[in-house]
Order: sequence, then C-alpha cells, then structure tokens
Amino acid sequence: MSTQTCSAAVLVDFEKPLEIRTYPLPDELAPGELLVKVQMAGICGTDVHLWLGQLPIPLPVIMGHESAGEIVRMGSPETADWSGQPLSLGDRITWASSIVCGQCYYCKEKGQPTRCLSRKAYGISYCASDAPHLRGGYAEYIVLRKGTSTFRLPETLETEAIIGAGCALTTAIHGLERAPVKPGDNVVIQGAGPVGLAALALAKEAGAAKIILIGAPQPRLQMGLDFGATSVISIEEFPTPQARNAAVLEQTGGFGADIVIECVGYPAAFVEGLDLCRDGATYLVLGQYANAGDVPMNPHTITRKQLNVVGSWAFEPRHVHRAIHWLDSTPWKHKFAKQVTHHFPLAQADEALNTVRKHLSGKAVINP
Amino acid sequence: MSTQTCSAAVLVDFEKPLEIRTYPLPDELAPGELLVKVQMAGICGTDVHLWLGQLPIPLPVIMGHESAGEIVRMGSPETADWSGQPLSLGDRITWASSIVCGQCYYCKEKGQPTRCLSRKAYGISYCASDAPHLRGGYAEYIVLRKGTSTFRLPETLETEAIIGAGCALTTAIHGLERAPVKPGDNVVIQGAGPVGLAALALAKEAGAAKIILIGAPQPRLQMGLDFGATSVISIEEFPTPQARNAAVLEQTGGFGADIVIECVGYPAAFVEGLDLCRDGATYLVLGQYANAGDVPMNPHTITRKQLNVVGSWAFEPRHVHRAIHWLDSTPWKHKFAKQVTHHFPLAQADEALNTVRKHLSGKAVINP
Amino acid sequence: MSTQTCSAAVLVDFEKPLEIRTYPLPDELAPGELLVKVQMAGICGTDVHLWLGQLPIPLPVIMGHESAGEIVRMGSPETADWSGQPLSLGDRITWASSIVCGQCYYCKEKGQPTRCLSRKAYGISYCASDAPHLRGGYAEYIVLRKGTSTFRLPETLETEAIIGAGCALTTAIHGLERAPVKPGDNVVIQGAGPVGLAALALAKEAGAAKIILIGAPQPRLQMGLDFGATSVISIEEFPTPQARNAAVLEQTGGFGADIVIECVGYPAAFVEGLDLCRDGATYLVLGQYANAGDVPMNPHTITRKQLNVVGSWAFEPRHVHRAIHWLDSTPWKHKFAKQVTHHFPLAQADEALNTVRKHLSGKAVINP
Amino acid sequence: MSTQTCSAAVLVDFEKPLEIRTYPLPDELAPGELLVKVQMAGICGTDVHLWLGQLPIPLPVIMGHESAGEIVRMGSPETADWSGQPLSLGDRITWASSIVCGQCYYCKEKGQPTRCLSRKAYGISYCASDAPHLRGGYAEYIVLRKGTSTFRLPETLETEAIIGAGCALTTAIHGLERAPVKPGDNVVIQGAGPVGLAALALAKEAGAAKIILIGAPQPRLQMGLDFGATSVISIEEFPTPQARNAAVLEQTGGFGADIVIECVGYPAAFVEGLDLCRDGATYLVLGQYANAGDVPMNPHTITRKQLNVVGSWAFEPRHVHRAIHWLDSTPWKHKFAKQVTHHFPLAQADEALNTVRKHLSGKAVINP
Repeated sequence: MSTQTCSAAVLVDFEKPLEIRTYPLPDELAPGELLVKVQMAGICGTDVHLWLGQLPIPLPVIMGHESAGEIVRMGSPETADWSGQPLSLGDRITWASSIVCGQCYYCKEKGQPTRCLSRKAYGISYCASDAPHLRGGYAEYIVLRKGTSTFRLPETLETEAIIGAGCALTTAIHGLERAPVKPGDNVVIQGAGPVGLAALALAKEAGAAKIILIGAPQPRLQMGLDFGATSVISIEEFPTPQARNAAVLEQTGGFGADIVIECVGYPAAFVEGLDLCRDGATYLVLGQYANAGDVPMNPHTITRKQLNVVGSWAFEPRHVHRAIHWLDSTPWKHKFAKQVTHHFPLAQADEALNTVRKHLSGKAVINP
Repeated sequence: MSTQTCSAAVLVDFEKPLEIRTYPLPDELAPGELLVKVQMAGICGTDVHLWLGQLPIPLPVIMGHESAGEIVRMGSPETADWSGQPLSLGDRITWASSIVCGQCYYCKEKGQPTRCLSRKAYGISYCASDAPHLRGGYAEYIVLRKGTSTFRLPETLETEAIIGAGCALTTAIHGLERAPVKPGDNVVIQGAGPVGLAALALAKEAGAAKIILIGAPQPRLQMGLDFGATSVISIEEFPTPQARNAAVLEQTGGFGADIVIECVGYPAAFVEGLDLCRDGATYLVLGQYANAGDVPMNPHTITRKQLNVVGSWAFEPRHVHRAIHWLDSTPWKHKFAKQVTHHFPLAQADEALNTVRKHLSGKAVINP
Repeated sequence: MSTQTCSAAVLVDFEKPLEIRTYPLPDELAPGELLVKVQMAGICGTDVHLWLGQLPIPLPVIMGHESAGEIVRMGSPETADWSGQPLSLGDRITWASSIVCGQCYYCKEKGQPTRCLSRKAYGISYCASDAPHLRGGYAEYIVLRKGTSTFRLPETLETEAIIGAGCALTTAIHGLERAPVKPGDNVVIQGAGPVGLAALALAKEAGAAKIILIGAPQPRLQMGLDFGATSVISIEEFPTPQARNAAVLEQTGGFGADIVIECVGYPAAFVEGLDLCRDGATYLVLGQYANAGDVPMNPHTITRKQLNVVGSWAFEPRHVHRAIHWLDSTPWKHKFAKQVTHHFPLAQADEALNTVRKHLSGKAVINP
Repeated sequence: MSTQTCSAAVLVDFEKPLEIRTYPLPDELAPGELLVKVQMAGICGTDVHLWLGQLPIPLPVIMGHESAGEIVRMGSPETADWSGQPLSLGDRITWASSIVCGQCYYCKEKGQPTRCLSRKAYGISYCASDAPHLRGGYAEYIVLRKGTSTFRLPETLETEAIIGAGCALTTAIHGLERAPVKPGDNVVIQGAGPVGLAALALAKEAGAAKIILIGAPQPRLQMGLDFGATSVISIEEFPTPQARNAAVLEQTGGFGADIVIECVGYPAAFVEGLDLCRDGATYLVLGQYANAGDVPMNPHTITRKQLNVVGSWAFEPRHVHRAIHWLDSTPWKHKFAKQVTHHFPLAQADEALNTVRKHLSGKAVINP
C-alpha cells in the first residue's frame, strides 16, 4: 500500500493559532491497533486550558479527547470492543481517552485506576512529532493503541448525543458514583458548563428533590432549566458569594444543601461551596481539574460542619459504557444532542476553540 | 434544708487567673436532675482555648467538660442512666458534656446530633451567673440537667482511665466511625496530643498495618510508641512540611498514607495533611476544633488525588458508652490511666491550665 | 364535660365479623395526648392477616394502623408535631403507627429503632378493653399517646394520597434506604400489591433502568405499568418459578437483576427471588412480614452468587416525614390517590376487609 | 532438550485411591508461562469434597490449589509478578488458584471477578489428560499459565505460614471485606476448621470485642483459644442448636451477635446462624461452598430481624497479596505456620487426604 496522508489541526505554540499539518497514515498497524476516520471531535473546556498552556503537555500536540469515528483499518482481524464483542471495519465507535494499565499500584492495589501511574490521554499526552503522530481527535484520522477501550455506538444513538455529552458526562458519572445523590436530596450545582449540566442530569435521574443551579450566562441557565433544575441563581444577578449563599439558604430552609457539586474550576468556587453545605453534607469537588493555584480557606469549616468533601478525577472506561447505555435508553440523548450548537471544519479549529473560550456555544465540535 | 455552699474555679475574664468563688448548692432539684460531687475534672486543650478567649462563650463560666463524680442527691428517685438502668445515690458516674435535643432538624431529619441546634455543653456554654450556677467540672459539685446522658463507671474501671482518655477518646471514636481505619491500612496521625494518641489507639485496635505519628515533644512521641505507633516523626527534627512529607513517603512506598488523621488544630496542618495522602486516600480532619482562620490551600489537590476529606465534630452519648466499655474490657485502660500525670486541687486550677498550655503534662486533672 | 361516646369496628374473634361497639371518649387527656376525629383509615393487607389470627395480638382490638384525621382535643396546649412545630385544634394529621422508646438496646445502642423492645402499634397491639380503648383507626375517634410522632398534612396533599400510599410506602422507603436502587440498575419486583407498587415508584424515582414487575391480577399489573414498570410478568401467564425465571433472564442479558425486591409474603417467593438475582446482586426481602413457616432453600446459593440479602422491618417516623414530603412535591401523589378505589363506612368494615382479602381493590379505606 | 518427566498424584476415580502417574515436563514454554517445582501443596477440605465427587470436575485431575514452589523455567525472560516486579529463576512463589479474565460481564461491568465467566482453578478445573497436564499442586512440577497472578514470598515468611493459612485465609479476607467486623463488635464464628480459624484471626485483628467460636473437636477449639477466641462452644458438649443458641445469648446480653460468620458448610448451620444474630446483625455465609442441598428455613426471620445476609465466593489475587503482606508483618505467621501439623510425600497423598477427611490434622501438606 502506498503511503497515504491526512490533515490535522496541531497545537504548536501556546496561545498561537493551530496549524494545519499533514501526517502520513501508518503503513502498517500492529495487532490490536485501529485506524479510525474521525467523524466528530468535541471541543472540551480543557482544550482551552491546554491551548493557554495551563497544563504540562508535550508540543506539538493534536488535541481532541472526546471523539467518534469509523473504523477503516484494523491491525488484526479479531479485535474486541470493551465488552468483548468483535469489532468490524465500518463500525462507528467512540473510545475512552485513557488506557488503564491494570498493573500499577493504583490500578491493582488501591482500586484507583483513574490515577494509573502510566496514564496517557489521547488529545493531551502524545507528542505529534512521534510516530504514529495521529493521537488526537482534531484530525482526519486517529490511530488507536492496542488496549484502548472502544465502544460501538448503537444505531439509535446519534453521534451528536455522545459528543454533546462528551467527557463532561463521564466525569460526572464517576463523580456521582463516589458521592451519590440520594432520592429526596436537595442539590446545589455550582457551574452551568458541560460538567454542571451533566451533573444536573444525573442528579435529576437519581431522584433529587430540589436542584439549584448557580452559574451564567443566561442561555446556559436556561439549558439548566430545560434539564430539570428547580431553580437557577445567576452569578450576574447575584454577583457576590454572600448573595448567592443567602439565595441558597432561602431555598433550603436556612440550612444549605444535602449535596453540593462543584463544576466551576476556579479555586474561589471551592470555598464558596463549603458555605452552601448544610452540616453533615457531602461536597463533591468535580471541577478543580486544572491547577489554578491557592485560595484562602478555613479548615475549621470542615470539622465543625462535619462535611464529606469528595474529589473525583476523570473517569474509567466503564463510565463510558454506562454513558452510552444511559443516553441510548432515555430521552436524555436528545437533550445532550441539542447541546451541539456549533459545527466547524478542521480548518476552523481555532474558531471552534474561541467559541468555547468565550462561552458562546452549547457544545462546539469539529467535523474533520 | 439550710442552704449549703461549695467552691468553684471560675473564668471571669479571658487570660486572667481563675477566681475561686462560692455558690449555693440548689435547695431543691427538679425531677431528673442530679447533684454530683465532682471527684475528678480533666483539663482539656479546649479549656486553654476558652481561657484565651478563642471561642464565643458567656462569662463568667465554670469550665470542665470531662469529669466524673458521685451522685449525692437526686431530683427524683427513679432516674435512669443512658442505658435505662436506675441510678442510685453513691453511684460513681461520668456524663456526656452535651444534651442532644432529639427534636431539631439536625437531630431528627439529618442524623447529625452533634450539630443539634440547641446544643449546650457543660463547662463551656452555661453562664455561672445563672442559677443553678454549677454547670462545670472545676467545682466541688455540679448540677446535671434532666436529660443528661449519664454512665455508671464499672468497679473495674478507675476514674483515671476515663478522665485520662477524656473527650479526646470520644472525639476520636466518633471520627473513626465516620472515617474508619481498615485492617491493613497505613495510617498517618498528625499531632501527638490527647486526640492524636486516642486516634492512634483506635487505629491500632482497628488493625492498622503501619501507624506513623507526627508531632512533639519527645515525651509525647514516646507515649505514641508505647501506644503502638510504628514510627514517629518529630516536628523538631523534621521542622518543615517538605521534610515530613519526604519521611512519610519514604515509609509508604513513595505514595503516602491510606488514611491521614489530623489532630493538630493549626490550619497549616490541614494543608500539610493533604500532601501526606496517597491518591484515593481518606483524610479525617478531627483537630480543627477552634476557628483559627484561613490558610492558603489548593483545591485542585482534592480533585486530582480524588480524596475523601471527612470532618467530625465532638461526639454523641453513645460514643461515651463505647469508650467506657472499650476501656473497661481491654488493657488500654491502663495506658490511658497512666496518661494522668498531674493532679491539682481546685485552688490550683490556674496552674493546671498552664501545665496543659505548656504541654508539660500527659493529662492534668483537678481533684476538687 | 359530660362523657361522649363513639363507635368503633372491633375485632372480637378471629375470622368472625367485626362488631360495632361503643366506647366513651376520654373525659380528660393527659399532657401530650391528642383526641383525633378519624377521617380515613386504610385497610392494610396486614389487617387481613390479623383478622385471620396469623399474628399474636390481644383481643378485642380496634384495627387500623394507617389513618388520618383532625385534632379535636389536646391534652396540653403546646404539643408539637414530629418536626417540632406546634399543633393546633383542627389540624389534619397522620401519625406513625409506632412509638419508638429511644431508650432501649435497639433504639440506643444498635440504631435499630424499628426493633424497639417496647414497640406497640396503633391498630395492632392495644387491647380495646383497656382504657382509653380508642387505639385504632377503624373508629370515629382515636386517642394518640404522648410521644406519638404526628405530621400535619400540607393543604396541597389530599388525604387519599397519603392513605392510598399507606404503610406500604413507608415500609418501602425504609427498605430501599437499607438496600438502595442505584441509577442504571435493573430491578425485579416480586409482588404487585401495595408494597410492590410503592417499591416500584421508589425504584423509578431512584433512576432504575429497567423495572420488571412480577405479580397478578391483571389490573394490578396495569397499575404497575402506569407506575412506570418497564415490563410485567403475570404469574397467571407464567405459572411456574422456572417460567418466570426464564422470562427475567431473557430481559436481563441472561444474568438476572441487579436488585430484586420481594413484596409477596409467601415463603416460596423468597426462594424464587434468590434465583432472579445476578451474581453479586442485592436481594431486599421486604414482604415476609408474617410468620408463614419454613420453605426448603439452598444456602449454597447465597455463598456462590455472593448475594447481599437484606431484611427490613416496618419503618421509623422519619420515613413518614419523607413519604409526605415526597408525595406532596411530586406527581406521585396523584397516582397514589388514584389507588384508593373503594370507600366504606365504619359499619361496612367487614366488607372493606373482604375487598382487600380478595384483591378486588386498589386501596380500600374506611371513612368512619 | 530431551523430554524430562515428573510424578503426580492423580484423582482418576471418585473415592478411589489417587494414582501416581508420570507426565512429561513441557518441552517449551510459551511466553508468560512458568514451570515451578512444587515445594509444598496444602490439602484443603475442598479436596476431600472433590475426591468424594461432590463438585463437578473433569477426571482425571491433579488436585492441589494452594501451593508454593520455585521457578525453574520461564517462558519469557521478562515475566512479572502480580505487582509488576520482574520474576527470576529460583524465586520462591505462590499463586492465585484462578485467573481472572478481566473482560467478561462479571469482571468488567459488575465488579465481581470471583464470578468470572471463564474462571478455571488450578487443582480443580483442568483435566490432567490435556497437555501440559501439570495444573495442580499434588505433583513435582506445575505449569503456570500466562496471566497467572504470582507472588514472591518474602524471605522472612516461611512456606509453612502461607500454606498453613491456605485458601482459608484468602477466602476469609474476601469475606470480611464484604462484611467487615468493626471494632467493638461481638462476633460468633460457626466452625473451627481452617476458614473458621482464619476468620477468627481477622476478626481479632479488626478489633472485635468478643469472639465466640462454635465447633469441634477439642484440639481445634483449643487452637481457637490460642488464636484469641474469647470463649468456645463445643458442639459435642452443646449438641443441639437450642443449647448453642442459649449459650450465645447468655454471652451477648440476651440479644445475639453483631456479626455471625458461617464457616461450616452444612446447610443446617445456615439456619442455626440466623438465630444467633441480634436484630439488625450481619450474617456472613462463608462456608456453603459445596452444594449440599436444601434445608428448611423461615424467610420471615430475615425480614423481622432486618438482617444483612452476605455471601462471598473464593477470593481475588489481591487478597493473596494482602494475606502475604499481613502474615509477613505480624506474629500471625507463626500461628498459621504452626497449623501445619502433618507432612506427607507425594506417594502418600491418599493418606494426606484421609487425615483431613477425619479432622486429624491442623493442616496437612504434601512435599512432592
């Protein structure tokens, strides 16, 4: 086979426009590897952080860690998906962004596979200079490593639904597994971005009595109401933590929420959330994904209010499985598909990033 | 009956010497009330904080919230102890420092009785100017309210054991109920004070594999070794958080502890403890009892290491029951009794406080 | 006040028609007691068991343990409801059928208040020959003891809703608290009676993916579908455990359910349910309320399938609180209200019982 | 290399003497395979069940599923042990008897790897007629498959300790992980065999207050006392369930145990154990490993006493890791090593089996 090539949008320098570069498709695939024609790549808020240089990554890099596509070549005829079913050419699949080694201290002894010591993520951790180069979703093709957890998408589930939900949904599924919302709980969700909306959907599914969504801008709060929020608190209308705290207390009998879910990412949000908890509450800190530095906080609050503060990092392949199954079997798939408001070709990847950076979109995607 | 009187050591002004004052014994007790001749009152570290004015309390106050004594008068002949057994004159008892109302939002709906909305504690929350005045242990007599949870001390359990353990033990029992040490866990305990040693004893009982005690001064670390610590890290020898962190990592395969228990109280200890946790660890924040202000911390740590940070406040009467039962049925009673190193008469209550303030004692007690 | 009287339907002999007897209203109420004019008394399946003599109770007895009515006299002006709010004449209330002592081994030490050693239930445990006689709902008036947990019904919640839900709902709330349905679970419910339907509603609320209801007759299965069952298995159409097992396996990928909830009461149902569990499943045994004797079972199943088999008995007052709050704040109140299909006057209490015995009704109630 | 041979004791017909047969050592090992010279093979009670034909297995079979030995040949130079460390020729190792596939419904979706759909156990599930024949411990050599979880034994841990503990310890570790003993619990252990003693050791480690061991014969009860049982109840001295129940109630304040652990295996023991539970207790059914048929039981007990009945099957590789680590770091290794009371050469494998069958030994082992 003569070598074919494909295009990719490449992050070469932080805060600089992405470059469209050409890479060869691999001549040969090792057993277990897959060559996938990317159909849709979601732009995650994390991609903006990567672009701004706020996380330690190799350059150049092809971003894109929430993608779906079609299998066009297989390294071995008998490769199975995550659940052990054989894959075929032409299958429409998505995949977990990370491979869990299954052997290290965290995978094996401590049951914390999201903290796998050899964790690498497509679209984040692979240098595009190293063969086979194509390790991110902002490209016409991606080469999936042996051991990647892949998932065939049911015919009844459109690609918009799974990419519209994105890694926000799997992150929230993992988080709420660690800190479950119980039927009857009053829930506060800090942040109306993708993670906040996904957490809202899951809290709704789990039987929350009251769900108060704090965030902005107005269109996202409206999405929150469409997703089932009982009420919303606009940070534009209630610009101070004190004002928002008063609003939450007013809606929770003066005590605060049974469970607060942080989906913001600014350190100050963490401190604000502690105050929104009733005594004995659970506080799920889901959004502090990037290292944004210190914030003054008072640890006395944790002791006195006897809180459970729970962190949760990324997700495991089984959470992707659950996301697909859940979306496909409920009307939520339509709500998440409708979140995809902006489509861009590969050449406009920069514009796509900026749309997300400026919070102009529901979900922006690239169709390479 | 002609009115009798008794003496009490009274905190009249913060940071001023206690005054010995005389109060009348009550002429009459209401049904359910008990008049108890105090035999021993422990000096808790919290008493030092109260004396320094670091907690909001009424003045004047008779301190002393961990005490034992003998019933000398009963408001009604048929008063029962916590477990429903009838009490008699002459019984040697101890009691829970707080009465749980059983009716409020936290007692009834949310199962958080230590956060009872009408919680008041003997030796802390009662103004000595208000009849019947005698509501603290630094006095010859104390008047126990109806509804107080009282516990008869078994003959086989000397008073030194229960007061030597003090509210530190019940606080630690509650804390480890919320954040259990599991058999085989590697445990780090921050702080070698009474709470730290009590947590150490309970971690040992629960089958911890390794217990690393961080603290000072040397005599308390030696007590920790006697209590079963696997190793100790002196904050005098390892004066920086970085040095202590390195020492903990070295002893935990480079990863940190499965569970860290904070028993220090300084805000900086909270931040240090987050770093001593392995990913996915539990961090029990037990010592941040007084409001000592803010400290810069990075909430990203909680998300990335997917920690469970657990607060726990005070204790319930059932924890006193468990403490008595546990001490009485194990050799631990001898270890805790030996912690009582300093006895003072009521008139030297100030000296007793200073002994604790300067960390000169194991446990200092007043024998009024 | 001259003595007034009222009528009650009294169980004098097992399996004999109830007798309408006249009892005096109490001349005086002790502090904390309430005289309530009964507005509606539900006929519970347990009442049929009582009538048939299948549970050890005193005779004569006024049955009726799920009732609501209006306060017409108060023993003291300042009596509070369960949540501490003052009650007033004219309040429409319901109440927990049992008083929890709060003092015994099970209440205090072991946290199992439904197994309170001094538990007595209105409508079940009080002999009608003993003053004040009126301790059951099948009567014009009931005298509530001091310490009864009472609940004011919100104006927006009609009496039919709370009595239509009855003790089945509170029993199911307690059960699912001990064995929670998690979002995404496949659930099998054995039994389409009131407890089965209540469990179904709660499983739905908790985010169950699939709910398979096994039972009869057809109208109750139809109710199950209205309540949100994904599918129903009629025991008339599938008359053998083998056939039902095959049907469940077919709908659960060949493995069985994540959680099975037994709401039948026949011992054979317990054995059948073990087979409907996937390995590692939870089996909530909620319906074996009466002692109906032994059944041959194979304990090897529990070890090999590593099941969690969970029993749950009755409910606590806080579960009544949750039931009222949940019904009032969701559309479920309308579904439960519609379960009340048969109303009877007190004089036709026998007919009411027979309606339940023959499974002719949704919910039958007496309006005394 | 010319083919070498070795001897094995082979179960050819149920209840017939084992035959000593000769098998070729494999000419070549596939990558990941190991050839191990067996140093010690424990005789497990399950082996007696296998020999009696009470479990479905292929014949002929080389039994022996708890063994240790020395690596004498490796299929590839870079094979790692369970924790990822490289193995070398000469290493003294033990191994998990089963390989977990990691791909099936139970491994992947439901987190129940001990119920892996493709589970096969050394010494149980492999027909000795199929190459490479050597798949059990009753032989001079064993061939370990790629993917076997192997564990190097620390120099400080003698082989007697790990084989003396055997699969009883790992089974008990798994069981108590599912149904943890909490500090202060009163525990009843049914059965003084290897599983019972291992459960006793772990209950002791976990801080049990009282441990009552029920069993026979006297030497094993004495071992129980040496292991830390608070008291023993001989089934010879107390021959009826009623008598044993009375003895347990007398020692538990009339209520029964907080947790009962079944380690007997006779169906009747399951029914007896339900009665030894206090209300709200946990009942760990650990011993019903073989299918010994039905027993009459009353499911009402589970509902009324609101029990948690927990099954647990076999163990995962990580439990072997924990067993080794625990034994090696505590004095328990000496107690378990001392359980090895009988050593037999391979030729006397029958005698070894009979010793176990007749309960004559602590632990009997074969040194091939």
